[in-house]
This record gives sequence, C-alpha cells and structure tokens, in this order.
Amino acid sequence: MVDGALRACSADPDLHLVLVGPQSAADEVIGALAVHDRERVSVIVVESRVGMADSPLRNIRRESTVRASAEAVFAGRAYGMVSAGSSGAAVAASAHVLGRLSGVRRPGLAAALPTPNGPVLLADVGVTLDATMLELVQHAVLGAAYAAVALGIPGPRVGLLSIGSEPGKGDRLRRAVSIALSDIPLPAGSRYVGLVEGHDVAQGGRADVVITDGFTGNVLLKGIEGALRGTRTHEAAAVLLGVVGDVVVCHGAADGSDIADGIALATRLHRDGIIPAVGELADDLLTELSSAGGLTIRDQLGERT
Amino acid sequence: MVDGALRACSADPDLHLVLVGPQSAADEVIGALAVHDRERVSVIVVESRVGMADSPLRNIRRESTVRASAEAVFAGRAYGMVSAGSSGAAVAASAHVLGRLSGVRRPGLAAALPTPNGPVLLADVGVTLDATMLELVQHAVLGAAYAAVALGIPGPRVGLLSIGSEPGKGDRLRRAVSIALSDIPLPAGSRYVGLVEGHDVAQGGRADVVITDGFTGNVLLKGIEGALRGTRTHEAAAVLLGVVGDVVVCHGAADGSDIADGIALATRLHRDGIIPAVGELADDLLTELSSAGGLTIRDQLGERT
Repeated sequence: MVDGALRACSADPDLHLVLVGPQSAADEVIGALAVHDRERVSVIVVESRVGMADSPLRNIRRESTVRASAEAVFAGRAYGMVSAGSSGAAVAASAHVLGRLSGVRRPGLAAALPTPNGPVLLADVGVTLDATMLELVQHAVLGAAYAAVALGIPGPRVGLLSIGSEPGKGDRLRRAVSIALSDIPLPAGSRYVGLVEGHDVAQGGRADVVITDGFTGNVLLKGIEGALRGTRTHEAAAVLLGVVGDVVVCHGAADGSDIADGIALATRLHRDGIIPAVGELADDLLTELSSAGGLTIRDQLGERT
Repeated sequence: MVDGALRACSADPDLHLVLVGPQSAADEVIGALAVHDRERVSVIVVESRVGMADSPLRNIRRESTVRASAEAVFAGRAYGMVSAGSSGAAVAASAHVLGRLSGVRRPGLAAALPTPNGPVLLADVGVTLDATMLELVQHAVLGAAYAAVALGIPGPRVGLLSIGSEPGKGDRLRRAVSIALSDIPLPAGSRYVGLVEGHDVAQGGRADVVITDGFTGNVLLKGIEGALRGTRTHEAAAVLLGVVGDVVVCHGAADGSDIADGIALATRLHRDGIIPAVGELADDLLTELSSAGGLTIRDQLGERT
C-alpha cells in the first residue's frame, strides 16, 4: 500500500490522497514524499482492519479501514475509495455506507481484462456467490452501461459465460438467465449475443461484456491471471457496480504497481463522472426489473414447483 | 478426426483403431495409410451423430457414434473409446452402456493440466452442472486415486477450488464440501489441503488434484487454455472417472494433434490398467459415502430447513 501510494502520487501530480490506516504506514508514505508534495496527503488513522479470514458482515459495524474509507467518501472528504483488503468487507462497507442503486441488493465487481482482441469486461468477479437470476441480469445491465461509458465501446455486445456457445448449454441458472437476457432491453445500445466460454474471456472477440456469478468469475479471473503470469499484463483492479460512489477493489495479492493502477482507475472514475453516468443509464431498467417479480429460475424454465 | 487417427497410427505401431462413424471418413483414413498398415484399422459404420446442440440424453437410445463406440467397448471389440463430439453425449452413452462405479450417479471428467510446478488434475471439467455435495466428494475420491495411479503422485494433495484460500471462503456448496473433505478418509495416501484458487490450477504447487463442479471447471479450463494460446501447451483430453471402462473425451475444438493425444491417453489407460486400479482404490469409499445419507449442504452447514 505504501509503495502503491507513492507510485500514484508520482504518476499523477494532481492527485490528493487520503490514507486510511495505521499511523505508521501513513508516516512511511509521507516520509518518502518530497516536502512540497506532503500537503497532497492527509491521514485518517484507523488501526484495526478486516482480515481476509474474518466475516465481512460481522465487521461491518466495527471500526475498520474500509468502513472509515466509505464514511470519508460519504462525508465528501474523498471522491472515491480503493481497497486491497478483503473484497467482501469493502463491498459490504461501501454498500452499507454509500447506498445502492434502486433494486440492487448485492452489487457486482467488474474487471476489464486486456485481451488480444480488445478489453473484455467480466462481471461479477467475487461478490455474488450463490447468485440469483436477478443478480446476473443486473450485472448485465450495469456491465453494459459501464462498458459503454468507461471503455468507450459503442453498443457493447453482452455474453453470458457458460460451458458451450450453443443455446441451452449450461446449468439451470445459465439457461434461465439466457432466456431473460434475450427478452429484456439492455442500456446504451448494447445487445445480448448469447452464451460465451472461458476462452472468449481470455481471448476476446465474441463479447465486450461477459456476465457470470461471483464464484465462477473470481475463479476464472484468477485462473487467467495465473496462466499469464510473466507474459501478458492483467488487470489488478475491479470497479464496484451498483453502489452509489466510486469504489475500486484490488485483489489481496496486489503489489505496489497494482495499487497505483487501482488509484488511477478510481481517479478516472471520478474525473470522467463514470459511476453517475452508469447509474443514469441503468436506473430505470433496474427499477423495472426488481419490481417485475417472478424472475425466478423455475418460472423462467417453465418447471413445476 | 481423420488427421488424428493417422497421427495416432503413425506414432504407435502397436495401435489398432476401430473407427466409428461415416464410411466416407473411414475411407479417408484407410486410403491414407500404407497398405501393410491397413489391417490395423477396422470400421463400424454409423452415419448419425449427436450434434453439439442436441440434448445428450434425448439421443442416448438412438443409434449414434458415441453409443456405437460404447457398445463396441462393452462387447470387447475395443479396449477403450475416444470422443471429440458433444461431451455430454459421450458421458451419457458410456455411463449407460458400460455402467458406473457403485454409488456414482454422475461421473466426472478429469483433465491433467501441465503447470510450471508439475501436473494439476482438475475434476470435474464439464459433467456435473448444478453439482451436489456428494458429487464433489466423489470427484475428490476418484481424482485422488487417479492422480496416484496415472500421474504417479505419491499421496496426492487434494484442494477444493474456491475464491480464497482461508477456511470458510466460497459459496454454500464449497463451505459444505470443505467440511466433508476434512472429515472423510481419501484413497491412496492422499490428503485434503483445503481451499485453492484459480491461479493454483494454472500455476500448480499447492495441490495435485483440484476439485470443482463441472460448470466452474469447464469455464476455468477453457479460460486457461485461451490465455495460454500460442504460448504454453495445454491438455486437450479428459478422462472419465466413475464409469467402468476407458473413456477419453477431447474438447469440441480439438485438432488432429489433440485427437492423437486423446488416443494415446486411452491407449495408456488400457495398457497400464489405470481405470480398474482407480476403481479398486475408490470402490469401498464410494459405496460407504453413497450409503451414508445425510450428505446434504444444509445438514453439513447446520442450517435449519
């Protein structure tokens, strides 16, 4: 974190950082900065943090770095937050403190992977375990809007991650979501292009946005990262979609360069007004979806209860 | 398939091939072989096949190449089968015709991935969608036995694929299976080493056998393959575990070299008596597990119904 903060300050002369954490870590950053740069850094001292093995929910009401960060954003002391601790804790704290878009119970994390055929936005990469149909459809709406606004892709192609590209391939959740995505309008001129596979995320070309549950997305993202280690670059930061605020989550094994990338991403989110624009594009549709009711796998697949 | 058959014949002078499919394809293979090699090839003519978009189950009773192949193995006309069509159809036909190990309702596909730290066996990579707890535990038993026998790994380390390595990380299925795997004995001196992540499959080092559901495993395998395209080699064939017979499934996009690798793998399974040895190591444990009852996620997690 210290290395990442220093890299970010040096890369972006207009950046102001609010460090949230132990005084000792903040002192390291400040001590390493040139004297005239020190005014660009302020500190909120929080000594306790949520460990990777702690329950993110159990800690939501306790004082923690993620909680204090979200509160700093809510109070306007910071424009956005970057966390590289437990992503569950960062998501829970920011959703609780900053609030969610209408109808969104669980936000999603979206990571833009560089591929030989352009960026692929993968959502969700770690929040929605035991995902519902509604959550996957919400990822599609938010992911499509984000790809249009943040990645500058006109009319993004939205694919649903499965085990084959032929219609009907996949588990019950995928079959139901695929039917739903064929039916509903998607924002920003985006369109549903059907089922895609693991290699389509690594290689790109078939879809600009790939939708999946947080379990599969997390496993796939880390698998691709592991395979590319030492060869192609990967994306180390993900954007939280569905929360009212600029929240970036770096993975737990992030190094200084990854943290600096995460800070640069949060900076860009704020400067370009990306998250409010995504919310505007998605809001009506999300409201409609969540009030539609009957968005259950059984109903969609025409199964008897 | 024609190219793969020719490559396999040329690589292994002791190989005899029973070609199952259209006469025209068989004629291509035979025509390309030297005259003295033609007696190494026999043909079972089947013109209809199960397409990738067909339901594997709907076709199980119809005449098809996979059905005819499984029957040839059952009748002793062939020692094993290799399919590169719909893996669902190959699995359904072989399980139906050849039978399954005691207590195994759905077999699993295991793929051995080469990694910088030695091979990692990933199971399942495509059969058990909407997987149950029992199915994942069965994958662990069969995968551990296979890693010991076929990969020559003494006391294989078995990991469960999840979204973090700390205990308790994952969805409900993973949390329940992790508790179960900590409790039960595993065959061949293998031991459960806890949760592993996507990069542990691509990089190796933490577990020799990685257990997951067929949806996640298929997505991850294809993601790693896609990331490595043009760099490291990947594994193009998977072994079916839980069926009484030597069955190898190549993925749908397999080229001639992949098919030849699949044939070589099936040959090795037969020559080394691997599948019967795996069955012997796993049989008692599988029987015990399936008769244990109460192996439900709710019971395991202590949830109220």
